[in-house]
Amino acid sequence: MVGKSQIKLIKSLQQKKVRSQQQLFVVEGRKTVEELINSTIKTNKIYTTNEEFALAYNTISELISSADLKKISSLATPNGYLGVFEIPKPKKINFDDWILVLDFVQDPGNLGTIIRLCDWFGVRSLVCSTDTVDCYNPKVLQATMGSISRINMVYVDLPEFLETTNLPIFGAFMEGEVVYKSNLPKKGILVMGNEANGVSDKVLNVINQKISIPQFGEKTTESLNVATATAILLNEIRRA
Amino acid sequence: MVGKSQIKLIKSLQQKKVRSQQQLFVVEGRKTVEELINSTIKTNKIYTTNEEFALAYNTISELISSADLKKISSLATPNGYLGVFEIPKPKKINFDDWILVLDFVQDPGNLGTIIRLCDWFGVRSLVCSTDTVDCYNPKVLQATMGSISRINMVYVDLPEFLETTNLPIFGAFMEGEVVYKSNLPKKGILVMGNEANGVSDKVLNVINQKISIPQFGEKTTESLNVATATAILLNEIRRA
Repeated sequence: MVGKSQIKLIKSLQQKKVRSQQQLFVVEGRKTVEELINSTIKTNKIYTTNEEFALAYNTISELISSADLKKISSLATPNGYLGVFEIPKPKKINFDDWILVLDFVQDPGNLGTIIRLCDWFGVRSLVCSTDTVDCYNPKVLQATMGSISRINMVYVDLPEFLETTNLPIFGAFMEGEVVYKSNLPKKGILVMGNEANGVSDKVLNVINQKISIPQFGEKTTESLNVATATAILLNEIRRA
Repeated sequence: MVGKSQIKLIKSLQQKKVRSQQQLFVVEGRKTVEELINSTIKTNKIYTTNEEFALAYNTISELISSADLKKISSLATPNGYLGVFEIPKPKKINFDDWILVLDFVQDPGNLGTIIRLCDWFGVRSLVCSTDTVDCYNPKVLQATMGSISRINMVYVDLPEFLETTNLPIFGAFMEGEVVYKSNLPKKGILVMGNEANGVSDKVLNVINQKISIPQFGEKTTESLNVATATAILLNEIRRA
């Protein structure tokens, strides 16, 4: 049985403020829960309706009823597995490789996709402005799958961070130089801006080189989605 | 006022079967409605709660009440604009350029993103297997924005279509040749497979060259999402 105070705590972890106070976050779904248990992220507690699963991870799991799971789940139809994990401390940023920087990315699905992309392309450090959506938001976690455990997530004052680095700073801009012509170095910083407004004015000043993905179709007002553009630019960085 | 039979028709256009019988589809939202009005797609009728808009497009619009809009809208919170448009006849496929082929792509958001990508990269023909999600599905249209009017959407028996073409057929596979090493021609066919199962067995036989996007991170079970992988491969095709 899950006690009242426990239910209250787990439900309240849907709020960023509480996650930050408690340094805990919640994940649902067997695949992701299991992947996080077996990652470097520390498990606080697993709640499951699956007896076999609870037995397999008996030191960290509690077998609960569907009714109890429904009380702590944020899903309309809970899927049998809910894990509470500790938010890992940010690690030292590796300045000997490419670093991806997000400037006020708001959409949880976009951030989730971008974390998966970093994982795929082996970009280990993802530095976000403090106004970028929280990476422990349930909707972000749903899109990242287990990738979150392999990426060093750091939230910082962006202009300050960028001013103190010696790496060349590239930014994605509609009017930037065509990326195919840019001579991309082996390490650097790539800044991706907000969905609607692009890179913010404060960050604009510290960009060394504006790059862009050329449009081959009819010129329209549509731009590429930020997650899609990140996919293409990370690929360009790694193929360089 | 919107009559009962009209309400029934518009609501039923949320079903693929009815769209196919009536050769009509529905779009909501000012930006997309306006973009489609001004495209080559033929407008059947616009319903709006905005007097100015109804006046600007008075030959094709009807000013209706919020209550009436709610009756025909598929949105929890209708946004003031609902357009009914004619499904365009598929045009002749241009075999003198790259053609993108989708083999059983199921997720509406993925198809929507892929249509936008075709628009960006100027890939005019998008050929889908008959079991790929319908491109006039409201969730697809929400993700494509106005791009749908600029892409020639064709649904076919895929093995049959691929067997009759002389173009080289490339397919995205986890175990394919690294795409950076592939000598991509100026025209060809790129096949993207299903989200979970990749390219189907029937189509596998007609693939001439398997290509892949290399994984730079730790080897994990996660693969790239089909829309993300399409973004990267269309970029590779155009930069070649």
